This record gives sequence, C-alpha cells and structure tokens, in this order.
Amino acid sequence: MAETSSSLPLPSRRRYSSGEIKNLTSVSSSLIPTFGKVVDDIGYLHLNKYVIAPYDRRYRWWQTFLVVLVLYSAWASIFELAFKKASRGVLLVIDLLVDVFFAIDIILTFFVAYLDKSTYLLVDDHTKIALRYITRFWFFMDVTSTLPFQLIYKIFTGKWHTGEIFGFLNLLRLWRLWRVSELFKRLEKDTRFSYFWTRLLKLICVTVFVVHSAGCFYFFLAAHHKIPAHTWIGAKKDIKDLKDNADFKQKSIWLGYTYSIYWSIVTLTTVGYGDFYAVNEGEKIFNMIYMLFNIGLTAYIIGNMTTLIVHAAVRTFAMRDAINEILRYASKNRLPEGLREQMLAHIQLKFKTAELQQEEVLQDLPKAIRSSIAQHLFRNTVEKCYLFNEVSEDFVSQLVSEMKAEYFPPKVDIILQNEIPTDFYILVSGAVDVLTYKNGTEQVQK
Amino acid sequence: MAETSSSLPLPSRRRYSSGEIKNLTSVSSSLIPTFGKVVDDIGYLHLNKYVIAPYDRRYRWWQTFLVVLVLYSAWASIFELAFKKASRGVLLVIDLLVDVFFAIDIILTFFVAYLDKSTYLLVDDHTKIALRYITRFWFFMDVTSTLPFQLIYKIFTGKWHTGEIFGFLNLLRLWRLWRVSELFKRLEKDTRFSYFWTRLLKLICVTVFVVHSAGCFYFFLAAHHKIPAHTWIGAKKDIKDLKDNADFKQKSIWLGYTYSIYWSIVTLTTVGYGDFYAVNEGEKIFNMIYMLFNIGLTAYIIGNMTTLIVHAAVRTFAMRDAINEILRYASKNRLPEGLREQMLAHIQLKFKTAELQQEEVLQDLPKAIRSSIAQHLFRNTVEKCYLFNEVSEDFVSQLVSEMKAEYFPPKVDIILQNEIPTDFYILVSGAVDVLTYKNGTEQVQK
Amino acid sequence: MAETSSSLPLPSRRRYSSGEIKNLTSVSSSLIPTFGKVVDDIGYLHLNKYVIAPYDRRYRWWQTFLVVLVLYSAWASIFELAFKKASRGVLLVIDLLVDVFFAIDIILTFFVAYLDKSTYLLVDDHTKIALRYITRFWFFMDVTSTLPFQLIYKIFTGKWHTGEIFGFLNLLRLWRLWRVSELFKRLEKDTRFSYFWTRLLKLICVTVFVVHSAGCFYFFLAAHHKIPAHTWIGAKKDIKDLKDNADFKQKSIWLGYTYSIYWSIVTLTTVGYGDFYAVNEGEKIFNMIYMLFNIGLTAYIIGNMTTLIVHAAVRTFAMRDAINEILRYASKNRLPEGLREQMLAHIQLKFKTAELQQEEVLQDLPKAIRSSIAQHLFRNTVEKCYLFNEVSEDFVSQLVSEMKAEYFPPKVDIILQNEIPTDFYILVSGAVDVLTYKNGTEQVQK
Amino acid sequence: MAETSSSLPLPSRRRYSSGEIKNLTSVSSSLIPTFGKVVDDIGYLHLNKYVIAPYDRRYRWWQTFLVVLVLYSAWASIFELAFKKASRGVLLVIDLLVDVFFAIDIILTFFVAYLDKSTYLLVDDHTKIALRYITRFWFFMDVTSTLPFQLIYKIFTGKWHTGEIFGFLNLLRLWRLWRVSELFKRLEKDTRFSYFWTRLLKLICVTVFVVHSAGCFYFFLAAHHKIPAHTWIGAKKDIKDLKDNADFKQKSIWLGYTYSIYWSIVTLTTVGYGDFYAVNEGEKIFNMIYMLFNIGLTAYIIGNMTTLIVHAAVRTFAMRDAINEILRYASKNRLPEGLREQMLAHIQLKFKTAELQQEEVLQDLPKAIRSSIAQHLFRNTVEKCYLFNEVSEDFVSQLVSEMKAEYFPPKVDIILQNEIPTDFYILVSGAVDVLTYKNGTEQVQK
Repeated sequence: MAETSSSLPLPSRRRYSSGEIKNLTSVSSSLIPTFGKVVDDIGYLHLNKYVIAPYDRRYRWWQTFLVVLVLYSAWASIFELAFKKASRGVLLVIDLLVDVFFAIDIILTFFVAYLDKSTYLLVDDHTKIALRYITRFWFFMDVTSTLPFQLIYKIFTGKWHTGEIFGFLNLLRLWRLWRVSELFKRLEKDTRFSYFWTRLLKLICVTVFVVHSAGCFYFFLAAHHKIPAHTWIGAKKDIKDLKDNADFKQKSIWLGYTYSIYWSIVTLTTVGYGDFYAVNEGEKIFNMIYMLFNIGLTAYIIGNMTTLIVHAAVRTFAMRDAINEILRYASKNRLPEGLREQMLAHIQLKFKTAELQQEEVLQDLPKAIRSSIAQHLFRNTVEKCYLFNEVSEDFVSQLVSEMKAEYFPPKVDIILQNEIPTDFYILVSGAVDVLTYKNGTEQVQK
Repeated sequence: MAETSSSLPLPSRRRYSSGEIKNLTSVSSSLIPTFGKVVDDIGYLHLNKYVIAPYDRRYRWWQTFLVVLVLYSAWASIFELAFKKASRGVLLVIDLLVDVFFAIDIILTFFVAYLDKSTYLLVDDHTKIALRYITRFWFFMDVTSTLPFQLIYKIFTGKWHTGEIFGFLNLLRLWRLWRVSELFKRLEKDTRFSYFWTRLLKLICVTVFVVHSAGCFYFFLAAHHKIPAHTWIGAKKDIKDLKDNADFKQKSIWLGYTYSIYWSIVTLTTVGYGDFYAVNEGEKIFNMIYMLFNIGLTAYIIGNMTTLIVHAAVRTFAMRDAINEILRYASKNRLPEGLREQMLAHIQLKFKTAELQQEEVLQDLPKAIRSSIAQHLFRNTVEKCYLFNEVSEDFVSQLVSEMKAEYFPPKVDIILQNEIPTDFYILVSGAVDVLTYKNGTEQVQK
Repeated sequence: MAETSSSLPLPSRRRYSSGEIKNLTSVSSSLIPTFGKVVDDIGYLHLNKYVIAPYDRRYRWWQTFLVVLVLYSAWASIFELAFKKASRGVLLVIDLLVDVFFAIDIILTFFVAYLDKSTYLLVDDHTKIALRYITRFWFFMDVTSTLPFQLIYKIFTGKWHTGEIFGFLNLLRLWRLWRVSELFKRLEKDTRFSYFWTRLLKLICVTVFVVHSAGCFYFFLAAHHKIPAHTWIGAKKDIKDLKDNADFKQKSIWLGYTYSIYWSIVTLTTVGYGDFYAVNEGEKIFNMIYMLFNIGLTAYIIGNMTTLIVHAAVRTFAMRDAINEILRYASKNRLPEGLREQMLAHIQLKFKTAELQQEEVLQDLPKAIRSSIAQHLFRNTVEKCYLFNEVSEDFVSQLVSEMKAEYFPPKVDIILQNEIPTDFYILVSGAVDVLTYKNGTEQVQK
Repeated sequence: MAETSSSLPLPSRRRYSSGEIKNLTSVSSSLIPTFGKVVDDIGYLHLNKYVIAPYDRRYRWWQTFLVVLVLYSAWASIFELAFKKASRGVLLVIDLLVDVFFAIDIILTFFVAYLDKSTYLLVDDHTKIALRYITRFWFFMDVTSTLPFQLIYKIFTGKWHTGEIFGFLNLLRLWRLWRVSELFKRLEKDTRFSYFWTRLLKLICVTVFVVHSAGCFYFFLAAHHKIPAHTWIGAKKDIKDLKDNADFKQKSIWLGYTYSIYWSIVTLTTVGYGDFYAVNEGEKIFNMIYMLFNIGLTAYIIGNMTTLIVHAAVRTFAMRDAINEILRYASKNRLPEGLREQMLAHIQLKFKTAELQQEEVLQDLPKAIRSSIAQHLFRNTVEKCYLFNEVSEDFVSQLVSEMKAEYFPPKVDIILQNEIPTDFYILVSGAVDVLTYKNGTEQVQK
C-alpha cells in the first residue's frame, strides 16, 4: 500500500532544493514570463570561472559597502564646492581613497554575470559582459565620476587650479547616488525589513541631502559675490562672533557650514525667522527655486506619512468597526448578554489571529500547494482518529484536503440541539460538553 | 418532547458565566493560540494568596493613578533641568512624594501574577514572579528612575550639589513614560472609547510634551552660555519687562518659562515671527534638530488627522454614491418617479440601519452562534404563527435558522402578481394590501 | 386573463403617493426602527390646528433665514467686544433687530410639532410641546442669548455701562451657532448639493470665524493693557499712518480691525512675517494657544481636502488601472490589435456608463423592486417581439425579470461560431451581421 | 468541415476597422447612450467639404499649439498690468501676433463640425455650426479676449492711453486659460501619459501661475500708491541696489519682478522671512486674501500628493501583506520550509505578473470577447495536442473557451498522489517529474 507523497518527501526535498529555490525567489522577483517562456534553472548554477553571479552573497556585501562610500562622496562633493579651503586638506585624501574603491568596482563589473532580459538566462561570457557594459552610457558615467580631475591637472601642470571648474566636475560623483536609490527599492520589497522604517529612513535621507545641498550652494553664492556685505551672511549685522560682516570668508569653515545649514533648515521647514534672508538677486532666485521645491518635498513627506499611517490603521479600524456593528446589532435586537459576549469573543479572536486575511491569501494559492498544507496539518490527526482506522489511504487524502482548523473559545455553543448536522468536527484538544434539554431540565453529558 | 436549548439556557448561563467570559475576553485579546493549544480557563481564577491578578480592577485603578504621576514627573524632570532655582523649592518635596509612590509600585510588582507567553497560564508563584522581574532590564530602570539621587548626595555629603549632573539624572524619570504609551495602546483597542478622541488626545499629549521639552532645553542652553547677551533671550533688545538684556537669569521663572514655551511653539508651528531666534552656535544646532524633528511631527499629526477623517467619511461617501447611482440609473432608464422613490427610500433605510456592514460581520461568525441568534430572534414569532402549530420542533429549528428579518417602507411592492414565489414572508407587524389587476381595474383586498 | 400590475399601476400610484413618500423619505432619514417597530404614516399628516410640522416648507425657509442672522450675530458679538466704540452706533440697532427675530423664533417653537424618539410619531399637543421645550437647557440658552442685557441695564439705571461685562454677555449669542452646524449636517447628507463644495464652504466658514475671533480678541488684549506701548500693535514703530504708537486706540476702528485680522491670518497660515508679534506675556500666552489650535485646524483642513480628493480620484484610478491591465495583458499574450481595441472600447464604455457600480447598488435592493424595474424596462420590448406572441402572461413576467440590458459597441463579436449558446439576445436597436466561415471564405448574412 | 471564425477573421477585420474603431473609442469617451440609442457610425466619416472633424489630427496639433500661446498670453497680460513700461516694447508686438493666431482660430471654428449632444451625430452643416457658435457666450468671450483694444484706441485717437483701463482689459485674455484646463482634463484620461506626472505638471502650472499673478498684482499695488515710501517695496530700508527707497519705480523691470516673485513665493510657502511685508492697508488686505487662498492651495497640493502616493503604494502594501500573512501562517502552523518557499514563490510570481488584477478586469468583459481571447491563446496548443486529433471542431471550441493559462515555478507540486483529479493540464513548455511513493521509496518517472 502506497503512502502519500506529501508528508515525507517535503522535508527531504527541502534539503537539496532550498538553495536553488532561494535563488529562484530572488530571480523571479525580476522576471515576468510570458505564456510559454520557462526559466532554465540549471544555467546560472555553473558559471564560467572568474565570473561572479550578481546575487552572490559577498558581491552583495561589497555593493552595500559601496553605498556607504556613495553617501560620503555625495556629502563631500557638494561640501567641497562651497568650502574650497576644505577641499585641499584631509578631504582630498579621503576622496582619492574613495575613488580607488569605485575604480575597483568598475573593474569588478567586467567579471559579474548579467541576466539577459529576453531569455532570462545568466550570461557569463566575458566578451559579452564587457561589450554590454562598455557600450552603455552607464559605463561612461561610472568612469567620469571616478576620475580625479583635480589630481590629473596637478600632475600635468604641476600646480593646483584655483577656478571653480573642478568643484563642478566633482558634482559628477552625485551620479553614484543611483546606488542608494537601488538599495531603497530593494529594501522596500524585502519583507524582512519594516516598510515603515525603510520609508522613513528614505525620507530622512532625502531631506538631509536636500538641506545639505541647499545650504552649501547658498554659501557658495555668498562666497562668490563681489561685495561680501551684499550677501545673506555678510548683511547680518549682529553676528556675535564676527567683528566685521564682510570677513565671513576668513572665518572657520565650521561657522559657515553651521550658518548655511541653519538657513537651509529654517527655509525648508518654512519657519523663516528672518534673521538670515536673501539679499542680492542671485540669492533671491536660488531661494525661490528652493522654496518652490520645498512645497513638493513637504507634500511628498506628508503624503508618505499619511500612506503609512493609513495602512497601519486599517486593521485597527476593521476590528473596531466589526465590534461596533456587533454591539449595535445586539442592542438593536436585544440579544441576551451571553450571546453578545460569545460574538465579541469570537470576533476578537478572529482579528487577533488574522484568520480572515490569511484565508484570503490561501485562496489564491494553487490547489496542489493548498492540498500539501492540508496534508501536513491534518493527516496525523485523522490517522490517529479511531473512526478512520482501516480506512483507505485515498479516502483519507480526499478528506484531509477538505478539512479546516477552527478554534472555539470556552463556553461557546458548537452545535445546537435539533439542528441539521452539516459539519463533522474532530476534537483535537480541549473538551466539549453535551447539553441536552430534556423534560425541562438541562442535562450535562461530559 | 424536547425543547430547544437556545432560548432558555442562554440567559441562565449568562448568570454564572459573564464574569469569566469578561476575563476571557480581556485575556484573549493578548493571546493568539497556535493550532493545538488551548487556554486552561480555570488556572487563573484561583490565584495564590497575596498574589494579585494583573487584570484586577483595583490594580488597574492603581496603574491609572500612577499614569497621572508619570505625567507630573515627566513635566517636572525637564522643567527642573532648565530652571534650577525651581528644583530647590516645593517641587523637590512633590518629587520625593511621587518617588515614594513609584517605590511602592516596584514592591507591588513582586505580588502581581504574570501571563506566561508560551503556556498562556497566569504564573502566581512568588519566586518565579520575583526572578522574572529582577532579571530584566525593566527592573533596573524602574529602580534607577525612582532613586532620589540629589537627596542621597545631600545625606552623604551634607550639602546640595550645584552641578548639572543631578538635573540629567532626573531625566531618567522619563523612562516612566512607557506607562502612558501603554495606556494609549490599551485605549485605542477599547471600543468603549471613541478612537477619534483617543487618538487626538494622544497627539495633543505628544505635541505638548515636545513643546515643553524643547522650550526648557532651549532655556537651559541660554542659561549656561558664558555670555548672556549672546543668547536667544539675552540678545533680544526690546523686552519690555527687562531693563537689561543680560539679567534674564535673575528674573522670575515664570517669565523665562513663558518665553521658552513661546519660542518653542512659534518654531513648532513654523510661524517663526523672528522676535526670538538662535544666536550662538549651540542654539543654532539645537534649533536645527528641533525643526527637522518638527517636519516629522507635523507630518505625523496631519497623517493621523487624515486617517481619522477618511475613516469618518467612508460611510457618508458610500451612501451618497449609492444614492447618486440610483438617481442616474433611474433618469437614464426613465423609470417612473414612484419606483425611483421606492429605491431611494430602501437604500436610505439600509444605510441608516447599517444593515450591509452588519450582514458582513455576521457572515464571519461560526454557524452555531448564527443559529443561536436566529433562534432568539424568530422562534417566538414562528411558534405563535398559526401555520406552524403542531409542526415538529426539529422542523421549526431548521426553518428558524434560515430566516431573515426584513423591513419594508410603506407603499412598497413586496411580491408582484404573476411572479414565481421564491420567498415565504411572515408578517410580524404592519399590514399588507393585496392588489390584483383584473379586467383592467385594480382591486384592493385588505 | 389578468394583466401584470407593474407597468400600469406605478404611474397612477405615483400620483397620490409622491407627497407622502417624500415626507417618509425625509423622516426615514432620522429613523432606525428596531425589528417589530413600524412607522404609522397617517399620524403626522393631520396636525392640530395652529401647529406647524417641522418639515413644513415655510418653516424651513424661516430657519434658513435665521442662519443668516446667526452669521451676523456671531460676527458682531466678537467684534463689539474688541471695538467698544463700534457697539454704541448702528450695530446696536441692528443687534436689537436681530434679537427681535430670535425672540419670534422662541415663540414660534411653541407651535412646532416634534418627533417623539420612541414612537416615531409627530406630537402636536400644545402642552407637550411647551413642556418639552421649557424643561430643557436649550430653552434657557435660547432666552439668555436673546435678552438685550445692555438695553435692560440702560432702562433700569438710565445710563450706559462702561465695563466689559456686557461685551462678554454678548458672547452668549455664539450659542446660536448650533444652527449653522445643523445646516451643514443637513447639507452634507443632501445629495442635491455637491459634497465637495458643501465641505469646502464649511471649512471656509470655520477658518474665517477662527481668524475673526482671534484677531478681535488679540486687539481686545492690546486695548486693555495698561501700557499701550507694551502691546503688539503699540510696540510697532514704523506704522505709517500713526504719528505715535500709543494712540492706536484713538484711531479708526477700520485700522485696528485690519491690523488685527492681518496678524490673525499671518499667524494662522504660519507665514509669520514678524512685523507684528506678541510683546507682553498675556499676548504671548494667547498667541501660544492660538498657534497650538492652528496645528489642529491646519491638519483638519488638509485631512478634509485629502479625503475629498481621494474620493474624487477613485473612479479615475479604477478606469486607468483597468485599461492598463488590459494593455499589459494584451501585449504579454500578443493579442491581435482588433481584439485589444474591442476590449478597450468595452471597458471604457463600462466606466463611462458607471455600469459596474450601478449593478452593485441594484443587487442590494429587495427582489420586488428589482422585478418592478425589469417589468418597466423590458415588458414592452418582449411583448412587441414576434416570438412571444400568444405566450402566457406568467411566462413573460418570469422571463422579463431575468432580462438584462447590454450595449455592444459596433464591430464587436457577440456570439462566436461553434460556441454553445447560453444566452438569448433580443435586438432592441441597431443591426447584427451574421458572419459564417464556410469553405475558407467569410460570408456575410445581413 | 467549418473552421472557427476566431483566429483568422480577426486580423483581417483589423485591417479595415482599426481606423473607425479608433475614432469610435475617442467618441465613445464622451457618449453615454441610454438603452435604445445607438451611434450611427457612418454619419461622421463623410463630412461636408470645407468642414473639419473635431478629432482631425492636424486640428488637434493646432489646438495644442494654441495652448502654448495661451500660456504666454496668461503670463504677459498680468505682467503688463504691473509693469506698464514693459507693455510698450517688444511685448506689444508679440501680443499682437498672438492675437492674430487666436483670430484665425475663431474663423476656423466656423469650419469645425460638432457633435450633437442628443443624437450623437457630427453636424457638418455650415449654417448650423455658425449659429451654434455665434449664439453662445463662448463666442463673445473669444472675440473680446482677442481684440487689441490698445491698438484700436491708438488708431482712433492717434496716441497711447496712459490709464490703467487697457491693462485690465488685457486680463480678458485669461479667459483663454480654459484651453489649458481642457488639455489637462484630456491628459488625465489618456493612459499613454503617466497620471502621476500629468497631475504633478498641473499642480506646478497652477502654483507658478498663482505665484506670478500675486507677485505682479502686489507690485501693481505698490506702484500705484501715492507715497512710494509707504509701500512694501519702498519701506524696505536696506535694499542694496537702491540708493533711495522711493525710486523703485525708476529702477529696472527685472529688479521689480524678482522682488515681487520673491515676496510671492516667500508668502505662498509660508516661510515669511519678514524682509518684505505689507505696509499700507491696501497691501495688507490683498496679502490676507492671498494667504487665505494659499491655505486652500497648500491643502490641495498635499491632498493630491497623498492621493498619488497612496495609489502608488497600494500594490506594494498588498504584496507585503500577503507575504507577511503567509510567513505568519507558516510559522504558526510550523509548516516545513520547502512548503513555505513554494507558497512564497507563488505569491511573488502572482504579484509580479499582476495576475489577480487582470483576472478581475477580464471577468467584466462580455462573453464573446473572452471567448475570442481564449480561442486566440489556446486553439493552436489544443490542435497540436495528440489527444485532440480528429476531435470535432465544436468540441475543441467549447474546450478552449474553458481553458486557463497557469505558470508553475520549478520544484512545485502540481498534482498530489491519491488526490481526486479535477483539472486537466496540457503541458505547453517545460517538463514535469512524476514522483510515486511506492514501498517507502520515491520513484522518479521523467
């Protein structure tokens, strides 16, 4: 007599398939096969020598490490534009070091397989990988954003350039921010991380970056105006730490940076104390653009917050509404209190165990998976049941796939006397009292 | 002949079960049993002597009373940090008194049973309770936040300490705020309180606490700056009540507190008049952090408000949409006005009685409860009905469980002539006219 | 042979029932009968002599007229508190006139029937109406808010009082604002008015009222401060129209009112220019309360706006999503363009005619109404149909109640060749081509 | 033996019908036929000579071109009101040129057919078109907003008028903005454009227009005040580029425009630095109106943003919730990891392919279209299938219309052993292993 294939094979299969399936899961997240296309699940397991799979664990860590460097270079490239003095010191060394890491990544990219969009196969051919990378705009930007122009100029001419051009060339490094954007896209889809905190972190990152950029650029405008007293920072008369307004450029970088960021945040949050404000026309125009942009940013932040809060509140509202409906129904129809409490206990349990949502999700699974689940959950119970001894395997399989688990709170009626029986209950745990109402008295049969 | 068990037993059962079921309800709200686990509903009713159940009514009142004290100590600990003068007077005595109450609560906790997370049983063993409490970080924080460090120092050294250290140690009392958070979590799940007002109260509490904290800390920064004139409050030239800017520290606590809170609210609401603004760098940095935090707080407040308003409007929108659809359908198909009014009357009644939502909720209840409800509602009606005299009990039970109550507005057609009858109506109250259309005239049979 | 009762009786019944049903509709909107309660629809049609029904058309107009007066008295009572000079002139006369109207309404209330909450009957007994009105707090407030205290004082003492007491007593007239609140509640439920504009109007009214109240009270604070120069309006140095700061109280009411409202709006919108700001502590405290309140108001306005916009966008989103799904499905499965256009045309038509929502609403109507609709729509069509000549009335009735109207865009396949026919179509208007594909060529049978 | 009509006729029909159907689609978007009305799809294809169809491609391009001109004239008419100097130079010439284009459009309108609202037919009769256009208010506004009043006055009187009257007459050109509104309405319904970006563009347009209008009008108020020093721009003492405050009118237009827009944005965004603020009462009143309006605008922007973000997040939330439910269900019932991964893989695939939404949309299509789709997708597969050789065409047609495509990820159970087979699978691509569990060992039959 054959045993069913459900309970035993699954754990054993898991042993050899979990790895592939894990890969499959991550691949399938970027694959929408048309009818008639199937993924060949062997191709990407035996890659060419010296070729790394894009979902290799160590490669992922390397990518995450690069994101940290990206955050630094985004911060630094704007900061150095505004505070030219700073760009000559220790920051220059760190910048070069960071550039080396990104140069390594460019080289590494030639050894990473890619997923062909039309065949859904991993391509591990060196020529193909190289061709694909070089022929794209991506490669050009990667290289341009990594070249240390200032150093190259120094090497060729022997002296540091004093113009603004290299400050602006450094802004090319902002191109690397796509890596941060990619990371957040991935995190938002990953259920291991809370969506709320991921989204919040993203909003904070965007806000901080905007504040930093606006502040630095505003200082840049002031530092390059021909009359220092006609700038937002120079026109301020009662700066306690400065003897003269116009000498703000000779003061510490720290002071300038604090003032810039302070102005930036005061404007972003629309507090607008008015202790610093745009004086010349260039500043006014930049200020206008920044303020208009901030309307959008504020609306975006509030919109996101609302979305997250609405989503978080949906379940609470559903439970409260259900309970309120029951209370109203019970009081309208003057139901006895015991019945009302049974209803409440049941509804609360249902929401606590999130049964309703789970049933809905399970409905969408294919039949075979649902059967597997049922076999796993109920087969043991049914086989141990006295009633089903000696019953054929086939019948048990059929029966099991139709079963459902139900939990009853204590003191709840399960079947009423005289009712037509339509369900068959197997008692897994706990006890049931049989109360018959005979000759006017209630008899308990335990 | 046996009577059904539904109508009689329920009220009688209620008599002895309402207490337990109430407890069950509150317990079940923190219990999600896995399949196969059942709550033992006897265990927690006979607790050890000198052990209090966590849901004991008097213990709950004690906890609620402590929440009030928590609100005071949260307010006071920050206030005393900023206004050191105040912390020597009557506030010190009140603080000590409050600490005594919390010390009592720490001792009390050794006598309160707890719910074991894995077995869902109340543990009333003294050793277990004590071990669980002492071995946790919770206990350490409870004790640390209750110790009156300043007094201990006084006792040991014989003099008051003048440094800031005790002011910061007092901030440990903010740990107690988890009790407020717990209270709000409980209130939000309790349907006896309006969700809208609970949430609003929470938002107001958070806002007021933030305003108070920021204001006090801002004053603290000003009071500890070496040059009083270089502070946000000292730099203000035209304060009417002060002869000299720098003597703000000698002025009344009331004045300083008002000014601090005023600045705090002006910044939080982003009004930013500019009469007070950050002067030195320390103030600027604190101000920046506060403003950035306020973006989040504002978004949170607006998001919550939107959620509450959206939820409140859902039912109004549903009704208006349904009525509009009917009006559009009627005018598109040129339905006679009488028919249109019947449709409208019916829809309005349905929304008023909230029938639609109730039916949905009732659908999710288990069959036995739904049968009990039907028995309670319709059995009397059916038994009094002439047609069902002498009919067997079983048949009536079956019939009743299939019945539904329906309310018809006056002047509405119930069954049309020549229609196949599919429903059977029992008239509970009111009257029906039978109109037959014979030989071209309408005949009324009342 | 009997004719069906559906098509003919309805228009004739409409003639005598539209009046009552209209009343019923408006009454039913405030009536949620429990199972077993029925409204007696005769009682409230024959009222006692000299008693007015609350839904009498003229009484409704009178109420609407009073709302306009309420708006005036709400504006005036706060305005007069701040600008005492104004309360002696023409405003006093208007106030008295308005009070007369409200006195009339108090007297009128004794002649208006009311709906008993437990029996749902209109009570038209004079004693009962009077008792119910007098014994309630409502009556006390109505009278108190109508009495012209200032005039009474004048009459008794012979001179005008100069204190603030009557200004505050006048604020009792704000009690009348419940009438505005009632009006908006009614408008929001009335589908003849756009919900969007009703809600918007309400928000504008609330905002304007808040702005007016805060501005007037702020001026009141300044006008009653002992040192005029230490007030928000007196401290302002560069007011162009004033020679001296302190004489603002001697200037025109118009100037003071403009400045107050200007400050109020600058604060409410959180613009906070800083040209006017709180100077003394009383002003600071009021300002704080106003700003904290404004957080709530702003959140309320934004929340309402979001709710309205979300609701308005739901249908557009549904259509766009459906169309996008079809386009994606078609391109994924490479469906021929003709088929894709058929699908698109159909979906667009469905959304334009709002068929989907209508079907849902109709589903909730009771069977009798749905049958009536079907009889009205399809009976003529079926009876004119050659196929159903000489068929029994009963059969036609049954058939008709199962029919559905469907509209096909041109060039759309209705039945495919070789398909099992499951539906029976009656062509009401337009033409169908029969295309058979025989021997490799398409043959058109028109 | 007859072939089915589904696969062949469709592509051939497409050849001649795609044009009409396209027209139909665009027409049907403005047509809601009542039951019994059918569009005559011949009428509008053969239009009168010299008459243009409203959906003619070239006419559409012309309309789009006019929208660009509208944007210019909306900008210019307000700008010229504030800066009268500017309205004498090159702008006057451009204005006249733009007017010529709109004059051409007025003439053109006499040659464009219109859709009759009651018959849904295109009317191409010249007299009818002309009568309909001339008798409407629309025509009057079109003409009035196009007449160059200033030039006409010059021609008749021989000199330029110096009053404000023509500046206000120019504001009539704002009437043309309805074209922009129309364009956005069309774009929002067009699925080829992203709703998000369309809506964002609309919000930006509205904001920029409001900012421009308010700024210009504010300058207009200052420029026309009798005492230049008592204006918002004249009262500002430390404008660096001006020697004297009062001479701002003699300065460049560019400076005035920058300052006005700067003030406008500072107020709109509620930043309110306070460097410019309303000085005289006229300015104060305008400022108040602008600020109150801005509350609404801000709420509108945030509401729209929230709507868009909520809609965008719905799918992500649905997927995350479904995955979370499965993870919770799996861990609660201790399902083996293999089964859990199968469930996850399936759900992710389902959301990626958006199968759920598509099925829902397809359900709403009429039967004939769904059959056509099934024929197109599955007929070839079935006919190639060995099992259905020699089976009658009718049977295949029936079978095909019941088929569904399903995609299984690798390593997933399709049918469990011993299960009752209810579905019949045809393998289109890929391979299935048959694993039988016999005598305790698993046997693979490939």
